[in-house]
Amino acid sequence: MKTYKYPTASTKADAIILADGEFPTHDVALSILHNNRYIVCCDGAIDTLSQTKVTPQAIVGDCDSLSEKNRMKYQDIIIQIEEQETNDLTKSVQYCSDQDKKHLIILGGTGKREDHCIANIGLLADYIEYIDDICMITNYGVFNAINTSSVFETYPGQQISIFCIAPCEVTTYDLKYPIHKRVFTNWWQATLNEAENHTFTIKTTGKLVVFRAF
Amino acid sequence: MKTYKYPTASTKADAIILADGEFPTHDVALSILHNNRYIVCCDGAIDTLSQTKVTPQAIVGDCDSLSEKNRMKYQDIIIQIEEQETNDLTKSVQYCSDQDKKHLIILGGTGKREDHCIANIGLLADYIEYIDDICMITNYGVFNAINTSSVFETYPGQQISIFCIAPCEVTTYDLKYPIHKRVFTNWWQATLNEAENHTFTIKTTGKLVVFRAF
Repeated sequence: MKTYKYPTASTKADAIILADGEFPTHDVALSILHNNRYIVCCDGAIDTLSQTKVTPQAIVGDCDSLSEKNRMKYQDIIIQIEEQETNDLTKSVQYCSDQDKKHLIILGGTGKREDHCIANIGLLADYIEYIDDICMITNYGVFNAINTSSVFETYPGQQISIFCIAPCEVTTYDLKYPIHKRVFTNWWQATLNEAENHTFTIKTTGKLVVFRAF
Repeated sequence: MKTYKYPTASTKADAIILADGEFPTHDVALSILHNNRYIVCCDGAIDTLSQTKVTPQAIVGDCDSLSEKNRMKYQDIIIQIEEQETNDLTKSVQYCSDQDKKHLIILGGTGKREDHCIANIGLLADYIEYIDDICMITNYGVFNAINTSSVFETYPGQQISIFCIAPCEVTTYDLKYPIHKRVFTNWWQATLNEAENHTFTIKTTGKLVVFRAF
């Protein structure tokens, strides 16, 4: 069974993707942005990123919203992908995959418009079909998608929420409120659980998203 | 078919429930908070609300997080419900229902921790089973839950996202990207559509959440 590590300020990835949600402010998210070298920026996020000392290696998206100034400044690293079937986050993930970068961390994937936020979290469950290791780190915690039984690093007392992308059977071990072969039919039903140890295990064959709160 | 109005700054409800997410800042959300008389405050939200001129009629929740100062100040209107099976938002909705208040608007239901946010949005699909009319207004738009074919007021160009709480068949009329008898298996698949007229219609028998962006 795969074990999902709990990220720290010094966690490294092949690439960091900065989406255009709420800019990282939590210490772990912000440190990961500063401590990694390969940053792919979804186009709308460059306005905020360009106000920091972090330099992106690529700016990916339909580039509708790039300012003329940033379009000039970053002309050598802009990857314009105009098709409208996927959002800028998916374009960025596919770009990283094409560069053979298979260990990815998404920052800035939530906050602002809630429909974007829910969509981006759900997309994690699609990305795991072609990315070896991908998580989303927000200012409130860490999201991972799984489609098979998995172990998660945690700490006693950590708040844990589980979301089924579509109803499926779930069993958990080492959570305060144990779940035994339950099928959830609404998003809230497996939220606000709590870790009891330094790992917990989820047994499933469905597509789940797992949230560990900071 | 029921028609879901598009809320404005002067929209009235039997009760406004203020949850403990991001405090209203958008003009529509903030005006509704100020223009309605019956405000039910989820307990954690009172710290922010008490810094405004809005007076709540009830403070509902497990009240674990109330400051000693606010516990004294509001002692006559605190409704402490200790059971841990439901969250403060659901306790507040049930309290309103018990008072025969059946037209409710939730503010502050999103923002901050994303698992709370997704849970609160999903809960709308449960609330419609016993509340006649309930919506959630955030700083980015309006969420309604439906479980039958429905009409929504809108304006040409308004961004519309649809979420299936569990996979079900959906057909839409008067949206830019028409959906015809599709079953969605991931949260993102029916997001980022656009209204073409002053109403749009969704035909379904499943539980959906519909978002109209400001």
